Amino acid sequence: MEAFTDFRKQSLPLIEKEMENFIDDYTANERLKEAMLYSIRAGGKRFRPLLVLAVLRSFNKEAQTHDYQVGAALEMVHTYSLIHDDLPAMDDDDLRRGKPTNHKVFGEAHAILAGDGLLTAAFQLLALSQIEANQKVLLIQLLSKASGTQGMVAGQAGDLQGEDRLLTLSELAAVHEKKTGALIEFALLAGGILANQPEEVVNLLGVFAQHLGLAFQIKDDLLDATSSEEALGKQVGRDEALNKSTYPSLLGLAGAKEALTEQLSMGSDVLELIRQTSSEFHSELLQELVEQLRLG
Amino acid sequence: MEAFTDFRKQSLPLIEKEMENFIDDYTANERLKEAMLYSIRAGGKRFRPLLVLAVLRSFNKEAQTHDYQVGAALEMVHTYSLIHDDLPAMDDDDLRRGKPTNHKVFGEAHAILAGDGLLTAAFQLLALSQIEANQKVLLIQLLSKASGTQGMVAGQAGDLQGEDRLLTLSELAAVHEKKTGALIEFALLAGGILANQPEEVVNLLGVFAQHLGLAFQIKDDLLDATSSEEALGKQVGRDEALNKSTYPSLLGLAGAKEALTEQLSMGSDVLELIRQTSSEFHSELLQELVEQLRLG
Repeated sequence: MEAFTDFRKQSLPLIEKEMENFIDDYTANERLKEAMLYSIRAGGKRFRPLLVLAVLRSFNKEAQTHDYQVGAALEMVHTYSLIHDDLPAMDDDDLRRGKPTNHKVFGEAHAILAGDGLLTAAFQLLALSQIEANQKVLLIQLLSKASGTQGMVAGQAGDLQGEDRLLTLSELAAVHEKKTGALIEFALLAGGILANQPEEVVNLLGVFAQHLGLAFQIKDDLLDATSSEEALGKQVGRDEALNKSTYPSLLGLAGAKEALTEQLSMGSDVLELIRQTSSEFHSELLQELVEQLRLG
Repeated sequence: MEAFTDFRKQSLPLIEKEMENFIDDYTANERLKEAMLYSIRAGGKRFRPLLVLAVLRSFNKEAQTHDYQVGAALEMVHTYSLIHDDLPAMDDDDLRRGKPTNHKVFGEAHAILAGDGLLTAAFQLLALSQIEANQKVLLIQLLSKASGTQGMVAGQAGDLQGEDRLLTLSELAAVHEKKTGALIEFALLAGGILANQPEEVVNLLGVFAQHLGLAFQIKDDLLDATSSEEALGKQVGRDEALNKSTYPSLLGLAGAKEALTEQLSMGSDVLELIRQTSSEFHSELLQELVEQLRLG
């Protein structure tokens, strides 16, 4: 894990700097800025932007400012989605990353606007970044697809509609593919595009992302079902309380753990395939990310 | 008014077709799609996209599909902002354009997501449009600036913060410049850019937009203070009920009417200036738009 720990320690401050500086420079209302920065500073694993940068590193590319900006934009989209998901009308969560949720501190109206602001700022940051115009347009196309009505927003709607009724395993997978999978897929694709990889390699990164995204969601479900609030920094048992179908509820704890192991193993296989396709590619860092998703 | 009425009748179906087709083709959840289309189909004046197209027409350019797409994206951003503004945590409105507001029909959670979806779809539509990459990037920069934390979202936050306290006239103008002025300015700038006008002309269109935007807001305030619910298709007297500072509350009815006349007259002067700067420019259509903002 050492390589990944070092890489994370190196990369995090640069991702966070891009987010904080952009919000600070491009927000024309102080209270709104405060609300946006509150959620941005609440921490979190920064899993998605780290994925972008890990892909670049896997192809021996030194990350530039614009690469950190793409990671920052992605994390801003993720953060907006958490703020809106936590609202009373949605999941009604009081606690996120061990801290009161945005609307608990700033009120619902400002939380809605902080989310709207972060989403719009993500596209503004991408649009202003120092990336060649055609590549920038492609990244904006992919981010809007992943985060919008073909991706995350559609998944969130599907998730709401799935409350209080039993989904089949394939319905559940379809919801999660959109709700969490799409942004993870964007991270991998964006990394490949920024590393100027050929389409074949970018597509394989997308396949890897699908296994990683599914594993990520199964682990999230398992943690919600088995962890304590202190350990997780957010309310637990919420899925059960909302009567949501989850991997543990459909497969049982043992079945869900098995599904997680299977997805991680398929992810590793795809990494091996990428290594065979591209001589530039070193799989160690992404392999460590896979290992991090295993249950402790 | 005949030229404008004809122009409007010609343009509206094409703007609406672009919005409906995009939402229909690019939304992967049926209930979400229904909620988005409900507000898109609720009508409205389509003032902002018509401005984009009116500028093009003023420079004798025949509007192409991509021009209608820019107008459609702009109207989708405007529509998202209405859905979120109407939410119980914001202005808490039950009626919009004579119909129940989005959350009254689809519930708060889906209304939040329909707004998020329309905002993201607007950027996706722009990113996928058939516009040359550099011009497309410029339009995405301007739309995110106008609609986000330097524009509309900041204005909405300022508006909320202004409830229950008396703003000065310049504070009120600053709020409205962001809340409604920024999208109107985008419409004029986008029209100039799509008509391939030089920077000097685009800048003058921006100055015209400022007068038009202010006039638009003053008229909106006057209508809220003096119209009936039947005539307006939405609840009236809301500003007073929320203790919001408005032009009539700060200047009196007569003073607000005078300020409206003054802004419209300054707008006409700028149109004359554009006519003197560009021999291609015909001011009739935009002049008719100015006339439409006069009190009947």
